[in-house]
Amino acid sequence: MEVQIAVAKTNKYAVLESGDTLEVVERPNGGLSVVLADGQTSGRGAKAVSMLVVRKVIALLAEGVRDGAAARAASDLLFTEKKGKVSCTLNIASIDLQTGTVVLSRNNPAPYFVAHGERIDCIATESTPIGISRSIRPVISELPVEPGLVIVFYTDGLVHAGERTGQPMDVCFSLQAMLEEQEPSPQEIADALLNEAVRLDEGRPADDISVVVLKVLKRDGDEVRRMTVRLPIRMQE
Amino acid sequence: MEVQIAVAKTNKYAVLESGDTLEVVERPNGGLSVVLADGQTSGRGAKAVSMLVVRKVIALLAEGVRDGAAARAASDLLFTEKKGKVSCTLNIASIDLQTGTVVLSRNNPAPYFVAHGERIDCIATESTPIGISRSIRPVISELPVEPGLVIVFYTDGLVHAGERTGQPMDVCFSLQAMLEEQEPSPQEIADALLNEAVRLDEGRPADDISVVVLKVLKRDGDEVRRMTVRLPIRMQE
Repeated sequence: MEVQIAVAKTNKYAVLESGDTLEVVERPNGGLSVVLADGQTSGRGAKAVSMLVVRKVIALLAEGVRDGAAARAASDLLFTEKKGKVSCTLNIASIDLQTGTVVLSRNNPAPYFVAHGERIDCIATESTPIGISRSIRPVISELPVEPGLVIVFYTDGLVHAGERTGQPMDVCFSLQAMLEEQEPSPQEIADALLNEAVRLDEGRPADDISVVVLKVLKRDGDEVRRMTVRLPIRMQE
Repeated sequence: MEVQIAVAKTNKYAVLESGDTLEVVERPNGGLSVVLADGQTSGRGAKAVSMLVVRKVIALLAEGVRDGAAARAASDLLFTEKKGKVSCTLNIASIDLQTGTVVLSRNNPAPYFVAHGERIDCIATESTPIGISRSIRPVISELPVEPGLVIVFYTDGLVHAGERTGQPMDVCFSLQAMLEEQEPSPQEIADALLNEAVRLDEGRPADDISVVVLKVLKRDGDEVRRMTVRLPIRMQE
């Protein structure tokens, strides 16, 4: 099998810095974790918050701390630092090779999607962002790593896309349409969702948007791990 | 412009865990850093060493510490932890958006390559791994981020590929042949170098191998950052 993870990420229109932070890290006992945080508001302040949270989480995961405990620790850290006045959403998706499962921890009102073949489940269990009170817990799900599994999660820029123009985005509908087609790659799914959101926002995203798509493929190829990062840059000229 | 970074990574034959660790992290003032470490020997012990080093470096970079200072700190940490008995190679490549440069820090006897058009420079300045003595410094180069720039670096599994079979790999030659062709993507370059090394090792890599390729493209497309990770997995069945 092969697990493929794709990310597409853009900034709020006319804001240089995204308030979303995403990192992918190796787990000390095998596998990977994707950590995505979205700090309250946008720009520099939001970025500092989401970086603080992601750094804390990846440092703990690197020490072998469980995902749920890492999310709680990040919440307590943010609560202490900002006196409960600043919230941050947090999603952690881990491929745990010891258990053969994908572990999804979520502190984010935005739902996520789990698809298998043409069946798509929208997981919208109530979930609160971290940092705003004591004893915040993540909502945790665990799914077996199986060929055909697709998981999609994102920050609220995707949820609110199109609201300004009165054409709110229907993520489930878009995803359904895509998965009925010929085996889209995770990057194609992430790009398509992001593009649709940007289009609904008329080319000027109303918020930072990050989309993460994880897919398990049957493919038994070589044993090579691969990663590609694409960073558009604009130099001061 | 767009900076693209590609990684291809495989384990020593019949060893489950790679002694190489690679992480890509966002820099707090804009841009990205790629951190690659190869711990002495292979398997679990080597992995613990390279993870220790990479974690230290990314934690410091996240705080805004300069690459050279982060490399020195990681060296001192390893020296202190292992009493100077364990070495680790370390390469840091940073896209620094504040200066508009690529900063390359190297504590690795393996050379790296800088290409521009069909001109390829092999940078083989003497450089020692970290952790084996006090006052170790990285060799640092800084290059302007310009379309057409290609940078290739790797762990010593690539350097020693084919030695067992008496057909040592000539990285410069392979790279030259590739760059004369039609604009290979960074992932194609990384895959081709890794595949050649594995072929010279007769399908059983004599060491962990990681190849990183960074390329600057003229492309002025959308403002979307993208990342794809591909992780082959083998479950206990």
